[in-house]
Amino acid sequence: MLDLIVKNGTLVTADATFQADIGVQDEKISVVAAPGTLKEAKRVVDAKGKYVMPGMIEPHMHVAAPFGGTIDVLDFYSASKCAAFGGVTSFMDFSSTVKGMSVLQAVKDRREEMSHAALDYGVHAKFVEANERVIGEVKQLIDYGVPTFKMFTTYPGVMIEDRDILEVLKEAAANGGLCGFHAESNPIAEFNRDNFAREGKLDWKYFPEAKPNACEAEAVQRILTFAEYLDAPVYFFHLSTKESMKLVREAKARGVKVLAETCTHYLTLTKAKNDGPDGVLYLMSPPLRTKEDQAALWGALQDGTLSLVTSDNEAFTREQKESFLDKDANGKPIIDFRKPVNGTPGLEERFGLMMAEGVNRGRIGLNKLVELCSTNPAKVFGCYPQKGCLDVGSDADIILVDPDKAVKLTKENLHYGLQYSLYEDFEAKGWPVMTIRRGEVLVEDGKFLGKEGTGRFLKRAISR
Amino acid sequence: MLDLIVKNGTLVTADATFQADIGVQDEKISVVAAPGTLKEAKRVVDAKGKYVMPGMIEPHMHVAAPFGGTIDVLDFYSASKCAAFGGVTSFMDFSSTVKGMSVLQAVKDRREEMSHAALDYGVHAKFVEANERVIGEVKQLIDYGVPTFKMFTTYPGVMIEDRDILEVLKEAAANGGLCGFHAESNPIAEFNRDNFAREGKLDWKYFPEAKPNACEAEAVQRILTFAEYLDAPVYFFHLSTKESMKLVREAKARGVKVLAETCTHYLTLTKAKNDGPDGVLYLMSPPLRTKEDQAALWGALQDGTLSLVTSDNEAFTREQKESFLDKDANGKPIIDFRKPVNGTPGLEERFGLMMAEGVNRGRIGLNKLVELCSTNPAKVFGCYPQKGCLDVGSDADIILVDPDKAVKLTKENLHYGLQYSLYEDFEAKGWPVMTIRRGEVLVEDGKFLGKEGTGRFLKRAISR
Amino acid sequence: MLDLIVKNGTLVTADATFQADIGVQDEKISVVAAPGTLKEAKRVVDAKGKYVMPGMIEPHMHVAAPFGGTIDVLDFYSASKCAAFGGVTSFMDFSSTVKGMSVLQAVKDRREEMSHAALDYGVHAKFVEANERVIGEVKQLIDYGVPTFKMFTTYPGVMIEDRDILEVLKEAAANGGLCGFHAESNPIAEFNRDNFAREGKLDWKYFPEAKPNACEAEAVQRILTFAEYLDAPVYFFHLSTKESMKLVREAKARGVKVLAETCTHYLTLTKAKNDGPDGVLYLMSPPLRTKEDQAALWGALQDGTLSLVTSDNEAFTREQKESFLDKDANGKPIIDFRKPVNGTPGLEERFGLMMAEGVNRGRIGLNKLVELCSTNPAKVFGCYPQKGCLDVGSDADIILVDPDKAVKLTKENLHYGLQYSLYEDFEAKGWPVMTIRRGEVLVEDGKFLGKEGTGRFLKRAISR
Amino acid sequence: MLDLIVKNGTLVTADATFQADIGVQDEKISVVAAPGTLKEAKRVVDAKGKYVMPGMIEPHMHVAAPFGGTIDVLDFYSASKCAAFGGVTSFMDFSSTVKGMSVLQAVKDRREEMSHAALDYGVHAKFVEANERVIGEVKQLIDYGVPTFKMFTTYPGVMIEDRDILEVLKEAAANGGLCGFHAESNPIAEFNRDNFAREGKLDWKYFPEAKPNACEAEAVQRILTFAEYLDAPVYFFHLSTKESMKLVREAKARGVKVLAETCTHYLTLTKAKNDGPDGVLYLMSPPLRTKEDQAALWGALQDGTLSLVTSDNEAFTREQKESFLDKDANGKPIIDFRKPVNGTPGLEERFGLMMAEGVNRGRIGLNKLVELCSTNPAKVFGCYPQKGCLDVGSDADIILVDPDKAVKLTKENLHYGLQYSLYEDFEAKGWPVMTIRRGEVLVEDGKFLGKEGTGRFLKRAISR
Repeated sequence: MLDLIVKNGTLVTADATFQADIGVQDEKISVVAAPGTLKEAKRVVDAKGKYVMPGMIEPHMHVAAPFGGTIDVLDFYSASKCAAFGGVTSFMDFSSTVKGMSVLQAVKDRREEMSHAALDYGVHAKFVEANERVIGEVKQLIDYGVPTFKMFTTYPGVMIEDRDILEVLKEAAANGGLCGFHAESNPIAEFNRDNFAREGKLDWKYFPEAKPNACEAEAVQRILTFAEYLDAPVYFFHLSTKESMKLVREAKARGVKVLAETCTHYLTLTKAKNDGPDGVLYLMSPPLRTKEDQAALWGALQDGTLSLVTSDNEAFTREQKESFLDKDANGKPIIDFRKPVNGTPGLEERFGLMMAEGVNRGRIGLNKLVELCSTNPAKVFGCYPQKGCLDVGSDADIILVDPDKAVKLTKENLHYGLQYSLYEDFEAKGWPVMTIRRGEVLVEDGKFLGKEGTGRFLKRAISR
Repeated sequence: MLDLIVKNGTLVTADATFQADIGVQDEKISVVAAPGTLKEAKRVVDAKGKYVMPGMIEPHMHVAAPFGGTIDVLDFYSASKCAAFGGVTSFMDFSSTVKGMSVLQAVKDRREEMSHAALDYGVHAKFVEANERVIGEVKQLIDYGVPTFKMFTTYPGVMIEDRDILEVLKEAAANGGLCGFHAESNPIAEFNRDNFAREGKLDWKYFPEAKPNACEAEAVQRILTFAEYLDAPVYFFHLSTKESMKLVREAKARGVKVLAETCTHYLTLTKAKNDGPDGVLYLMSPPLRTKEDQAALWGALQDGTLSLVTSDNEAFTREQKESFLDKDANGKPIIDFRKPVNGTPGLEERFGLMMAEGVNRGRIGLNKLVELCSTNPAKVFGCYPQKGCLDVGSDADIILVDPDKAVKLTKENLHYGLQYSLYEDFEAKGWPVMTIRRGEVLVEDGKFLGKEGTGRFLKRAISR
Repeated sequence: MLDLIVKNGTLVTADATFQADIGVQDEKISVVAAPGTLKEAKRVVDAKGKYVMPGMIEPHMHVAAPFGGTIDVLDFYSASKCAAFGGVTSFMDFSSTVKGMSVLQAVKDRREEMSHAALDYGVHAKFVEANERVIGEVKQLIDYGVPTFKMFTTYPGVMIEDRDILEVLKEAAANGGLCGFHAESNPIAEFNRDNFAREGKLDWKYFPEAKPNACEAEAVQRILTFAEYLDAPVYFFHLSTKESMKLVREAKARGVKVLAETCTHYLTLTKAKNDGPDGVLYLMSPPLRTKEDQAALWGALQDGTLSLVTSDNEAFTREQKESFLDKDANGKPIIDFRKPVNGTPGLEERFGLMMAEGVNRGRIGLNKLVELCSTNPAKVFGCYPQKGCLDVGSDADIILVDPDKAVKLTKENLHYGLQYSLYEDFEAKGWPVMTIRRGEVLVEDGKFLGKEGTGRFLKRAISR
Repeated sequence: MLDLIVKNGTLVTADATFQADIGVQDEKISVVAAPGTLKEAKRVVDAKGKYVMPGMIEPHMHVAAPFGGTIDVLDFYSASKCAAFGGVTSFMDFSSTVKGMSVLQAVKDRREEMSHAALDYGVHAKFVEANERVIGEVKQLIDYGVPTFKMFTTYPGVMIEDRDILEVLKEAAANGGLCGFHAESNPIAEFNRDNFAREGKLDWKYFPEAKPNACEAEAVQRILTFAEYLDAPVYFFHLSTKESMKLVREAKARGVKVLAETCTHYLTLTKAKNDGPDGVLYLMSPPLRTKEDQAALWGALQDGTLSLVTSDNEAFTREQKESFLDKDANGKPIIDFRKPVNGTPGLEERFGLMMAEGVNRGRIGLNKLVELCSTNPAKVFGCYPQKGCLDVGSDADIILVDPDKAVKLTKENLHYGLQYSLYEDFEAKGWPVMTIRRGEVLVEDGKFLGKEGTGRFLKRAISR
C-alpha cells in the first residue's frame, strides 16, 4: 500500500501543467497516474482545485550566522518552520570558513549545526584563501557531496584575493565543482565609504549610492574574465543591476559557462525604501536599486539570463541593526550607514512575492515560478532530479497551492517573530497550504508539524 | 486493464532522466510508475536498457509539394514510414496557398491530402498576400486549430510584400497566431543570380556564394524590426548563419518575441558539398555554409538562441533535380545553379544526425535532443503537452532508443527509395528501435506497421 | 599686391585655433602669416576680436524644387542670400531625375538652374532606377564632377527598388562614387499611413508616430547590409534616431564604409512641436523625435558616428502647406497629416543653432562646429581642400564671426520672407558678421552684396 | 628677415595636403604662403618633391630608466639623436616615483635628467600610491605643466592599488589632469607565471601565453569601469589586443572619456617572434600577439578607437637581457621568461614602420600618419597647437620626407649602437631626410647636428 496519495490535483512542473494523482512510497514519488486512479494509501490528500508543485528550494540563505558581533534571530529549526510555511522543503547555507582553517572541517561543522533542521539541507563551502592545503581540499569536498563553493570579492576578513580566486576556479573546474561569488568591487566600496564619510553623507539613503551599480558590475566582469580565461563555470549570487544583466547575457553568448540569480528584494523593492527612519531595515549588500534595474531583472528572468530567484535571507531585529550605532551626547543614535549589520529576512516570503509580483502581474507563468525556485536550484546546485521535480523516483517533496487564497505579507502572517515586515503592502493570490517533505507533512492547516532533526544532508554532485 | 505497458526503461524527457514504467490507456499515458510496478496490460514492452522518449515531432517538411513543375518523391503515407523509422510520431506541412485563394480553404485542402498519413499531422497556413478578405481569415484559421502562418520574403509567386507582412503580423498577434518566415533577401538573391550569370559563375559551387550570409541576415533583421515595432511574435525557419544567430540573440535580449530553428543539414554539412558533380544534390535554400557558421549554430542551440532542429525535408531524385537543366549541342546537360529544384531529404535522418553530431560528440545531452526535436516543436507550434512529453494525460507517442545500436545513414538504411544519401559518412550510436503513436506500434523489429489514414489532425493553439 | 587681407583675427579651423592674418590673391588664400605682418592689399578687413572661419558648406538642401504640385519659396539667388547671412559660401542641391530620363542630363539641367546662385554650387545626382543605360552613366557623372548620388527608399515615384540600389552601389563603388540615402522604410510608412487613417489618427501630432524610429532603422540597417556585402561606401542623409546611431556606430566598428549626417532640427526641436495648430509647420521627413533621440544625436556628433550637420532646407509658406488640405462642409480645412508638403527652412539658421545649442551650451567646441558644417562637408562630398579650410591654395571662402553678438532666430532676423520662424526661442551668442566667397564680400554690415550668377559649379571628386 | 624658409614643399598635416612655403621667425612658424612667394631668409631650404610635415612626437618612451638592476643603453642626448633620425622633434618620459616620495620632486628630478636632450621634452608623473600628501600634489603638478599621470596595474613596487587609483582619478578629473595606464591584470600575470613555472613552460615562446589577451582585457575593463563611474578621462598606453579594441570602442560609444594608443611593434610583429633563441629580444609587456590582434589594431586606428601610435622604447643589448638568466652546471644560461628585463627599442623606427606597414600598404594615408604620430600626441598630452601642426604661431618643428627614398630598418641604418634590429626585414618607402626643431636643423644629409641641452621643457595643459 502506498504511504501517501495526493489526488485530483493540477500538477505544475517547470515544464508542464496537467491533471494527475501522485503516489508516494518510502519517501519517494512512486507513481503518477490519471486523476482518480490512485485509491489506497495510508493517507490520501485531496488536492482538487489546488496546484501540486515540487517543493521549493532555498539555496542562498544565512541562518545562525554570526555577523559583526551579533547573530541573526533564526536557528535551523525555526528557519525550517518559516521556510516550510513559504513552500520550501530544502535549503542550503554556507560554511563559516576562516583563514588557516580546513574548509572541509568548516563544512562538517556547518553540517552538524544544520542537522537540527526539519528540511533537507546542503552546505556550500566558503573559500577565503588558496594555498596548497586548501586547494587539496577541493576534490575532497566534491567527493563529500559539496561541489559548490562561495567566494567574496569584498569584506576584508572573508574576502579572497583575485590571485587565489584563479587557483580555486582552476581546481574546481578540473574536478567538477562550481564557484559562486558575492561580487562587489571592494575598492569602489571602500573608496565611497570613506569619501561619503568625509562628506557627511551617512544617512541610510546614501547606502545604495555608496555601492553603486558600477560596484557590482566591476566585480562581475572581473570574475567573468577569469571564468572565460580558465574555461571554468561560475555562478553569481544576488545580482541586482541592469549592467550585470548585460554582462552575463553577453558572456553567455560568447560561451562563458555562467549562471546567476537575483533575489526577491531586488525584484520587488527599490532604493526609495532606504529613505526615512525605516531605511535601516532595508540595508543589505548589494543594496536596493532603481525601477529600471528591476525591469532589467524581470527581463533577465524571462530570457534565461538569470536562472534562479533566492532570498539571501538573514533576519535581524530592528534593535540588533540599530545596536551598532554610536550615540550622540544626548544618547540619541547617530545614523551611519557603515555601522549596522547587512541582511534582511526573505526565506518565508519568496513564494508569495513571486506570485504577487510575478504570476499575478503576468510577468511569469506558474511553470516559470517552479523553474526559478525549485527545478533550477536543484539542477544548478547538483541535487536534481532527487529534488526539484515530480518525476517517479524523486523525493516526495510536494506543496499544495491554493490558487484562490490571497495573503498579505504582514508581520502577523509571517513566522520570524519580528516586529516588522519589509513587504507589508504585498498581497499574493495563490498560497502554499500544505508542505510535504519526503512524504511527511510539514505544514497543514496553518500549523507546522515538522520535527527537529528530521532533515537530511544533501550529498550533491554537479552534472555536466 | 491497461492497453500497453512500456516497462523497465530509462525515461528521457527534455527535463530529466529517470527509471520508470509507463502505462497507456485509450491512446494516452495514464500512469508513470516506479520500475517494475506496472504489470498487466494487453501488451507489455520491455524497455530494459533502452531510452524511452516522447515521439519526435517534425514541424517543417514539404511532402507531396509540387515545386517548379515537378513533385517530390514522397506522399504522406510513405513519408509517415520514413518519419516513423526516424522516431517521428507527428509532422506538419504547409498549405499551398496562391494569390486570390482562401487561405482557410487551402489549409482544408492540405488537411485532406495529409489525412492519408499514419502519423498525427498539423498544417501551417501559408500567406502570400494580405487584403481585407485574407486578414479576415486569420481568426478563422486560429479557431480552426491552425495558429501558425508561413510567409516567404523571396520567390516571386509565393513571396509576400513587406507591407502585407505587417498586416498579417498585426492581425496574428492580436488573435494569438505565430508568423514564421522563410527569410532571404529577394533583392540580394536576384542581384546575384543575374550578376553571377553575366559572369559565367553558374557551377553548383557558386550557389552558396550567390545567396551569401548577408542574404539571410538582411531578411532576418527586417522581420525582426517589424516584429519589434508591432510587438508581434515571430518564428524563423531554417536559419543557417552566424550573423542570424547574433541578430536573434540580440533581439531576444531586447525583448523581441522571437523563436527560431536551424536544420540538420546546416549542423552537419558545409558548402564544400556543392563542389563537384554531386553538388546538385546539396542544393537547398538557404544554402550550406561554412564550419564557422556551423559552430555558431551549435552554440546557439546550447544557449537557447535556437529552439528547434528540423529537417525542411523535400526529397527529389537526382534525375528530377537534373531534369531542369538545358542541354548543349551534344545533349550534355549544362550546369546552372539557377535551374534545379531546391530541397533535400531529411525527415528520417534527423534523430540519427542529432545523435551522431550532437550527443555522440558531446555537444548536447540526450535531454536537449528531446527538447529540440520533440518538446519545443510541440510548445512552439501549439500542441504541448498533448505532444512532446511523457506526462500523464499526454498522447502515448513514445519511442524506444537502443543506446548501443550504431547505424550508418546510408541509402540502404533509409526508406526514401532514393539512389543516394547525403549523409553516407555519418554513423549514429543510439537508434530508435520502436516507434509508438497514441499507443499503436508503428515501427518494430525494423518493420513499418503503420496503417494509411490512421493519423489524426492536430488542432493546435499557441499558449502565451 | 594682395587682393584682400583679413588681419588680426583668431583663425578657427576644424583642427586648431590661432592668431594670424590671411592674404587673398586671385580668389584663393595665398598667405597666412603672423598677426599684423600682412599690410598692403586692395582691401584690408580688420578681424580683431573676431573668429575667422572657413565658409560653411550646405550639402543638403532643396531649392526651387517642385514638390507635390507646389514649389518652395526660394530660388537659387534668394537662397544664396539666406545662406550667406548664415555664413554659408557653398551649397549643393539634387538633380530632379525621373524614370526614363538621363541622370547626367538631369544633373546638367539642375546645374543650369543653379547657375543663378551667388554661392559656389554642386549637384548630387538622384537615381530612381537602375538599368544598363543608367548604370552606364555612373562613370560619366563622376567624370563630370558629380561623384555623389542620392537614392530614396520611400516615396513611390522617386523611390528606387532594392534590387536597383544594389546595382548602383556596385557601379558607384567601382568608380569612386558615393551613394547617399534618404532612408525610411516604405512598407512601415504606408502601413501606418493607412492604419492611422482607418483609426482617425490624422492630427499633426500623429505624424511622428506614423513614421516611428523603426521606420528609419529598418531602412538604415538594410542599406548597411547592402553596403557591407558589396564593400561599397554609403552616406545617410538626415538621421534622426538613437537606433540609427547604434546601427551606424556598430557598422563602422565592423569596417563598413559609412558616413552620416543629422540635421539642425533634430538636434534642437522635438516632436512636441507637432502638437497644436502650428504642428503643420513642423512636418518634415523623417519627423521630429524625442529628447532621448536628441541626446543620442549630440553624443554621436561628439564621438564621430555622425560627420556632418546639415539643414535639409525646403521652405514653404504656411499657406502652401495648408493648401493641400481638404475642406469640410463649412469650408474649414480638415487636418490630415498625409496631405501637406514636407519640408522646413533651415539654410540660414544652421550656424546660429549650432552656436546656441552646441557651442554656447558646451556640447561642442568651435573647432567641431567648423568640422561639422564646413570641413567635413567638403571632405565627404569631394571638394576638399578647395573648400572647407583656411590653407594656402584653398578658395578664399572666409567668414568673420563676432563672438559677442547675440541674435535671436526670429522671422525678422531671417531672410526667407516667411511669416514664421521655427526657432523663435533660440538665441545664438556668436554670429557671422561678414561672409566672403572666393575673396568677394557677400555679406557686410547686415547687407547682402552678392551678385546673381557669380557662383561657380563645383567639380568634385571623392578621395580615398 | 625670416630666419628660415622651407620652400616649394608639399605640406602634409593631419587634415590636408597642399603646396606652400613656410617661413620661420624666432623659432616659430610665422608665415605659410603660396609656393615660391617666400624669398628672403637667413637660410632657405628647397623642399621641392618632398613632404613637409610637423615634427613627430614620441610621448611614450623609457630612457635612462633603471629597471631590474640594469639600465637601458640610451641617455637623453643619444636618444635625441635616434629620435631625430626618426623624424621626432619632441619626446616625453616618466618620473621615477617610489613610495613615500614627492611626485612633484620626482618630476623635477626627471626634468633635470632630460635637460640634456636636444629635443623638447615633457615629463609624465608616475603615481605609485595615493594618500593625502600625494593627492595634494595633483594640482601642483598640473600647475607645473605636468597634467598627465601614469599608473601601473601590475609590477609590485610600482603597481598602485585599485583603491588608490580611484583617488588619483577623482582628483585628476577635478583639476584637469589625465590619468594614463599600463593596464595588465596582476593576478592573472602572477597566477600564470607561477603555474607555468610549475609546469616547466619557461621558454621565451611561453611568455605571450603567460600574459594572455585576457590579462590585458581584465585590467582595461576595470579601469574603464572606474573612469565611467567617476566620469574621469583615462588614457591607455600600449594596447595590444582585439579584446581591448572592443572594450574601448564600446566605452567610447557609451560616453566614457577614453583615449588609447598602440605601439609599432604590436602593429608589425607577432608572437611568432618569441620562438627560437632570438625570442629573448622580443620580450616586452604586454607581449606580442597574433595576426588577428594586429588586424584589429589597424582597424582601430582607422575608425578612431586608437588615437596614437607610440614606441614604448626601452633599448637593451642582448647581453643585458640575457644577464639575468641563471646558469646551469656547465655555465649555460637557463632560459626563463621570468628573468630578462622587458623592453625593446623603437624610438627611431616608428616613422619608417608606419610608412612601410601603414602608408605603403594602403592601410592609412599620410595625413593619418601625421595625426597618429604628431598631431594627436600633441592634443592628447596638452601641447597643441604649440606642437603637432604647421599653423602660424606654432613651434617650427618641421620634417622633410623624401617620398622616393627607400630604407631598410637594419641595425646599420639605425643609431642605437645595438648589435641587432627587431625590424631587419622591413623597408620603408618614404624617409625623413631633414629634421628641424624650433627652426634649428637637427638632422641633415644623414648627420645629427643637435646640441646637447638645447631641448626645452614642455609646460603642458590639457584642453577640454
